[in-house]
Amino acid sequence: MNIGKLIRAEVLAQQGYSAEIMECRIKLDANESPYELPAPLKERLFARMQDTVLNRYPDAGAPTLRKRYGALCGVDENWVMTGNGSDELIQILCAALARPGARILIPIPTFVMYRIIGLNYGLGVTEVRLDDAFDLDLAAMLEKIAGESPALIFLSYPNSPTGNCFSEDRIRAILEASAGVVVVDEAYSNFSGKTLLPLLKQYKNLVILRTLSKVGYAALRIGFLLGAPELLQELNKVRLPYNMNALSQAAAGFFMDEKQAFSELIDRIIEERKNLYVALQKMDGIDPFPSAANFIFFGCTLNVTHVYEQLIRKGIRIKPFIFPWSSRQFIRVTVGSREENEAFIEELKRVIAK
Amino acid sequence: MNIGKLIRAEVLAQQGYSAEIMECRIKLDANESPYELPAPLKERLFARMQDTVLNRYPDAGAPTLRKRYGALCGVDENWVMTGNGSDELIQILCAALARPGARILIPIPTFVMYRIIGLNYGLGVTEVRLDDAFDLDLAAMLEKIAGESPALIFLSYPNSPTGNCFSEDRIRAILEASAGVVVVDEAYSNFSGKTLLPLLKQYKNLVILRTLSKVGYAALRIGFLLGAPELLQELNKVRLPYNMNALSQAAAGFFMDEKQAFSELIDRIIEERKNLYVALQKMDGIDPFPSAANFIFFGCTLNVTHVYEQLIRKGIRIKPFIFPWSSRQFIRVTVGSREENEAFIEELKRVIAK
Repeated sequence: MNIGKLIRAEVLAQQGYSAEIMECRIKLDANESPYELPAPLKERLFARMQDTVLNRYPDAGAPTLRKRYGALCGVDENWVMTGNGSDELIQILCAALARPGARILIPIPTFVMYRIIGLNYGLGVTEVRLDDAFDLDLAAMLEKIAGESPALIFLSYPNSPTGNCFSEDRIRAILEASAGVVVVDEAYSNFSGKTLLPLLKQYKNLVILRTLSKVGYAALRIGFLLGAPELLQELNKVRLPYNMNALSQAAAGFFMDEKQAFSELIDRIIEERKNLYVALQKMDGIDPFPSAANFIFFGCTLNVTHVYEQLIRKGIRIKPFIFPWSSRQFIRVTVGSREENEAFIEELKRVIAK
Repeated sequence: MNIGKLIRAEVLAQQGYSAEIMECRIKLDANESPYELPAPLKERLFARMQDTVLNRYPDAGAPTLRKRYGALCGVDENWVMTGNGSDELIQILCAALARPGARILIPIPTFVMYRIIGLNYGLGVTEVRLDDAFDLDLAAMLEKIAGESPALIFLSYPNSPTGNCFSEDRIRAILEASAGVVVVDEAYSNFSGKTLLPLLKQYKNLVILRTLSKVGYAALRIGFLLGAPELLQELNKVRLPYNMNALSQAAAGFFMDEKQAFSELIDRIIEERKNLYVALQKMDGIDPFPSAANFIFFGCTLNVTHVYEQLIRKGIRIKPFIFPWSSRQFIRVTVGSREENEAFIEELKRVIAK
């Protein structure tokens, strides 16, 4: 067996994952919620899940869940698709739209999986740098749309790692100009309070992604895709019939039943984001950007690899960013609990003071 | 947005899923286990799962689980990959091997997802009919291997829907002749007591698939892939990092801890298979084939669509098969509990007597 002749070239060219699963005292690198569910809530969740029949396949296509989630969003279930995390929904989009020669257009920096998944499924990837305010460079985006007619455009709203929401009028202009699908990934919308949901019925090429991973359910892999039924009919052919397991379907239903309790946890994160932002602002050589997400992106005059390594020694994990096009270096830090944020700030101060 | 121009042609050409989720009193169509876990076992399983942290992402690549499952199979963790059901592992194989012009070779009839997933990812699909004993037509398979050099061959062992294990010497001949990957899908191996695991280190192009869906965990979507580390390194680039949720990882560990309890349930199914087979054998116009799986395939002189419809009226669901190449019609019935099997036999008798 000659693996180099069997595996598709784009996959061979990808870097392998680094296998590092490092135990860390304070995990501020993956934009997870810092809060476990309160014990009584978790009890009730598991009681609910325990009613699930385990020996039968889950409901194919999660119709009950889609109906409920759709109602929450003001659309019927034919506008909703569920995924094993939004990663899987990105994968389904890429696979379904991977016509020979098809391309993806993304601003950079943004969520890395758009590029990785796109390449794996044979799509060409065009990247356009964000402007100095981390907003979309509309002229450059429109030029690429006109020139390359991308099958897919991914816009993270708010954007990871920068934390801001792109201007809505620029997104609208892209929706107007694009003959392909424009995916607005609202993974962090619970922290921005903003959504493009009102545009869904106006633009048939708009697809919105959501996830419960950032609001306390990262372990459970629950993603939602909202889009026009004509498109979803085709995407559903690529979706594996039993892609969302039965416990995750039950847990997603529980989330909707207990929205208030989850909202309180989200509000606490937004509150801590303020405190963390203020603390970062006060520090020399640190330049935090306003955040509409559950993380803060900041410029750093120190070498960020050095900062990363110093923090790891103290059991604190953050995400450093070095861009080939920029002399500035950056760090993205997830908003943790108050104690975690304070520990992080304290250690960061020590690294800077050295 | 012109969907016909955006979606890949192979996906457009696929039939959509029928949305029928029909409540049925007796479900004998999906090869699930008829047995819920005994209450004390289920209690312990949920107690275990409740220890899982929900707000953090699952262990990427499930290293602990892979290590344990590998030990059970006599290989180290680099030989093991986990999936959101074995469906996802089939999808990853197809996606990773979808070089332009790449083809799949499958015997027919077999599990339909090989074909559906293969087409979705742009692979050509060649089908070779099984011989009259439902064994591999080795000469025809070898001819296609020589002529088309398929990137992937899928062999279900035992085969669904026919229920038999193909001859090991024919599978070996295919492994020897193939420059591509030969996937032996052992989804039903718990009921056959047979595995090609001893061949794994001998043939670098052998991949074995396993699932916990047939042994009581269908709701949880847990699949395993065993194969050479050089191949898995590439497949892992296509696998989404958090493809198996944390509760399923915990539940799979629990399965290994409690193998004895699960084995007892499997033994009961094997016992009921005998009874069901004997009952079918006694019936006029019914010609059951010996089964090494948790279902029985039988020829039926009646119109099987009619039989299906009559049984559905009584709340019993089975799977009818009509092949364009055969004048005989067939039914596949999952081995249910004793009561379910008896109810099925009784109603089948009534349909035949009419």
